[in-house]
Amino acid sequence: MDRERLSRQRDFILEIDKEKLIQRQTHLSMQGRRENDAEHAWHMAIMAYLLKEYANEDIDISRVMIMCLIHDIVEIDAGDTYAYDAEGLKTQKEREKRAKERIFALLPEDQKAELQSLFEEFEAYETPESKFAHAMDNFQPLLLNDSNDGDDWVEHGVTASQVLGRQGKTRRGSETLADYTAELIDIHIKKGHIKEDRTCK
Amino acid sequence: MDRERLSRQRDFILEIDKEKLIQRQTHLSMQGRRENDAEHAWHMAIMAYLLKEYANEDIDISRVMIMCLIHDIVEIDAGDTYAYDAEGLKTQKEREKRAKERIFALLPEDQKAELQSLFEEFEAYETPESKFAHAMDNFQPLLLNDSNDGDDWVEHGVTASQVLGRQGKTRRGSETLADYTAELIDIHIKKGHIKEDRTCK
Repeated sequence: MDRERLSRQRDFILEIDKEKLIQRQTHLSMQGRRENDAEHAWHMAIMAYLLKEYANEDIDISRVMIMCLIHDIVEIDAGDTYAYDAEGLKTQKEREKRAKERIFALLPEDQKAELQSLFEEFEAYETPESKFAHAMDNFQPLLLNDSNDGDDWVEHGVTASQVLGRQGKTRRGSETLADYTAELIDIHIKKGHIKEDRTCK
Repeated sequence: MDRERLSRQRDFILEIDKEKLIQRQTHLSMQGRRENDAEHAWHMAIMAYLLKEYANEDIDISRVMIMCLIHDIVEIDAGDTYAYDAEGLKTQKEREKRAKERIFALLPEDQKAELQSLFEEFEAYETPESKFAHAMDNFQPLLLNDSNDGDDWVEHGVTASQVLGRQGKTRRGSETLADYTAELIDIHIKKGHIKEDRTCK
């Protein structure tokens, strides 16, 4: 037993326990409470496994799953930045970069390098795996919000261009899920849950 | 787009959202609140990825991860049965069997078969993947409880033979983690957090 190595792995495992306390804006289905980052990541990873047939390109599903599971770990320090919070988004990158350096450094060197690389691959949005993981990051809260009559969009006064701007990127990972997403968004615009841009200025 | 298929997948995805509401007995680190099944499964899947080097046998890590992620889904109907709840354990199998039939049946037939098979493989405790997933199911709450001075054992008046009976099975999946577990248990017996059996009758 390499006690030093196992001890560092344990420190990291206990550190990421804090992700269960990071609240997101999205509410659980059935008008539930707000969900946290760990729950969101768990849901995304199962969805990735179940929906992998819709990926545009061949993907290594274990890489997608671990990417989904760790993609929000930096929010332990940096907090959750809502997808439509323009002010928060300006400082998000710098806050998350500092968090990435601190948290992954708890691990043994080889695993620090591996997980930082996976995290950076997710952020870069270029590989088939990261594009599909991002599609899950968009599609998971969309399904919850759709099941709640779009309450999260209504609460934040989100506009069509904001939703389309974010959710449109799902197409990079999955044409099928992007088509389905577009249909759902259209329904919520028609119902007035998402504001049309020309009426909100 | 096969709308019927996607619709069934969506129904399953929304159904398992309820796992975020199933409370476990284990508390989060830093004397936090009790954790839920989705958080526990998320933690286990990351741990499996990080600790895979300690598996006794070669494992397919993507199968271990999905097994970890779904292993508690039946508790949406059957509830969490505490590892040391002798009465609850008597009816656990039957309750979980009915839950398995209902919940996985929401999926398209091929995926229902696949996920049920993964769930049954976990339960059967025979393959290298299921033995390592079980090791994570034991080791995750042990690490949290150890970080909290064994408060969960103290609260439930758990005895050494109970802890050793459950945690001893970790050895089927990982000799290294079982050695480490045995050391931790010994410390908590010495500190009086786990009751010695001869003093508790």
